[in-house]
Amino acid sequence: MRTLNVELGSRSYPIHVGRGLLAAGELWLEHLDGTQVMVVTNEVLAPLYLEQVTHALSNHSLEVASITLPDGEQHKTLASFERIIDALMEQGFARDCTVMALGGGVIGDIAGFAAASYQRGVNLVQIPTTLLAQVDSAVGGKTGVNHPRGKNMIGAFHQPRCVIADLDVLDTLGEREYRAGLAEIIKYALIADRDFLAFLEQHMSALLARESNALEHAIEVSCQTKADIVAADERESGQRALLNLGHTFGHAIETATGYGSWLHGEAVATGIHMAADLSWRLGEITTEDLERVRKLLAAAQLPTATPTDMSSETFLRLMASDKKVRNNKLRLVIMQQLGQAELRDDVSPDVLRATLDNFCRGAS
Amino acid sequence: MRTLNVELGSRSYPIHVGRGLLAAGELWLEHLDGTQVMVVTNEVLAPLYLEQVTHALSNHSLEVASITLPDGEQHKTLASFERIIDALMEQGFARDCTVMALGGGVIGDIAGFAAASYQRGVNLVQIPTTLLAQVDSAVGGKTGVNHPRGKNMIGAFHQPRCVIADLDVLDTLGEREYRAGLAEIIKYALIADRDFLAFLEQHMSALLARESNALEHAIEVSCQTKADIVAADERESGQRALLNLGHTFGHAIETATGYGSWLHGEAVATGIHMAADLSWRLGEITTEDLERVRKLLAAAQLPTATPTDMSSETFLRLMASDKKVRNNKLRLVIMQQLGQAELRDDVSPDVLRATLDNFCRGAS
Repeated sequence: MRTLNVELGSRSYPIHVGRGLLAAGELWLEHLDGTQVMVVTNEVLAPLYLEQVTHALSNHSLEVASITLPDGEQHKTLASFERIIDALMEQGFARDCTVMALGGGVIGDIAGFAAASYQRGVNLVQIPTTLLAQVDSAVGGKTGVNHPRGKNMIGAFHQPRCVIADLDVLDTLGEREYRAGLAEIIKYALIADRDFLAFLEQHMSALLARESNALEHAIEVSCQTKADIVAADERESGQRALLNLGHTFGHAIETATGYGSWLHGEAVATGIHMAADLSWRLGEITTEDLERVRKLLAAAQLPTATPTDMSSETFLRLMASDKKVRNNKLRLVIMQQLGQAELRDDVSPDVLRATLDNFCRGAS
Repeated sequence: MRTLNVELGSRSYPIHVGRGLLAAGELWLEHLDGTQVMVVTNEVLAPLYLEQVTHALSNHSLEVASITLPDGEQHKTLASFERIIDALMEQGFARDCTVMALGGGVIGDIAGFAAASYQRGVNLVQIPTTLLAQVDSAVGGKTGVNHPRGKNMIGAFHQPRCVIADLDVLDTLGEREYRAGLAEIIKYALIADRDFLAFLEQHMSALLARESNALEHAIEVSCQTKADIVAADERESGQRALLNLGHTFGHAIETATGYGSWLHGEAVATGIHMAADLSWRLGEITTEDLERVRKLLAAAQLPTATPTDMSSETFLRLMASDKKVRNNKLRLVIMQQLGQAELRDDVSPDVLRATLDNFCRGAS
């Protein structure tokens, strides 16, 4: 097991990465204040892991309850949030209780927002069960649910007390979901680490085969990159926004197609390709760079094209309600070179339009 | 106009106290980041003040929208919270928008939680229109809504960018609502300021008559006391809990009677009397002190007796789900002497029972 740290002063916390961690109740025990634990999971994961986790906790005379939500991004709603709050109230759980998010990004985000809001904030432990959640959503304190008109529009910053990334759980992950996680890993390389980019290019087939060494390295570098960025800018006033490379385009795809039809990581993959295209049109990266990005995404078997029926107009309309809009200006993450990115609010509408039209050719 | 400050480092903010402030748009203008403002108010206040406030803003080429909620504590729900979020989404408001809470404690709490949660947090300006909100709920960053099983169980700490306490609006306040505010003012004297207690005893009839000088002094001392306590303990890990004197009993009364039938300040008044009774039984304050507390509450024409049909058992059951419960121990604010209080988790169940039985005699 390796332990990385997110340095946030009194709210610093560890990320444990390794195998067999789901049974290691002692890892999270030190992060509980009281004795009440609410495990939040979904109907797919409950049969696989819930007993193991509650058993690991039951050895320590804790009061453990659980709530199982339906699976899928379409359930990342205020209604699901409310179900968790109801469960906490029904159990009479106190302000020193702990919410344990056992699941992927959706469960982590909903349960995290419930932990942030229940009695104005209770303890949170993240046990991410997807590759995407392990390298991205479980780390950094962003929580929230979707609004019918936009993704993650209701939420809070609420840091967990610890993150448990157990590589064993990735073995049972479906192909599509696993690859979706690779999109965020590629993102870290593109915004912050050219060496890591070369590593990913060399080891993509090993990563697709879920080979232990390559996977552990990729997860550790990704978590460390995220931890460093979050430590430098917890509430996304600057550097942290770079983590949204491809996400403004990606969120538009997710909203347009209805949450759940495209996986978040899939939408981000196409979004990264679009951001690379835009960066190329702005003269920031070369034609070869753009092709390198596309090739790596394709090597990870991720989509690089937009939904066939999605028009440039739809993109523009949905992007206008993105959280990164400020003073009515759309702010976009642009690659200055591979391994380095910046947030820009001065992208000309014509250039953006050219990128959108390039991807949306033939859309109605 | 006088300006007090809540010292919270980079999140410090002013409380402006004075007359004619509702029209002084320049006071809050410096606290806006973007140009979009959502005024949240209720159906009673909208006809009185909404035009004045939107007019004060419209001189500054801002994009102003408003949402009017129904009046009353029974509407302090997640559903009302969601209506504000929907309005923000429908307007396409961005992360640099400002939510302006124009109303009493209920509006301030719901709008504050919406501001805390919309896009994980946007600007908040509090314009409290009741005495209670001016001296208490608008200051300090506590926001939230009620759950059917308990008060303020869903919420966030979210500090406003400024608080505008306009004494003019108190002129139109109903008698009952005005007196409810006096309960919180009395609370500050009892937990922190023996001189202020003497002032209140001497000037209660002037305060009931809403005489300007007495009222301004009472509001300023109360806001300063709250500001000092919040600055010392923003998230209620210690000293801030003293602000809950009488509130554990009071919340039980509000829950038992259904939100809205007792005003919060009325329930707190009886709660303060119960806390004084408990402090006396614990040997902390004298019989004369207890009588002084009761007399002051009565002089403010506030209730000091529990609802006739509320039993000790009902109190115990509802108090068990209070937010101050920790490690299954009920924590109660006890007066050590008049003007000084402490949080205790070691109150014997028998003594608590004696206080409850004393108040609940004859209840079914």
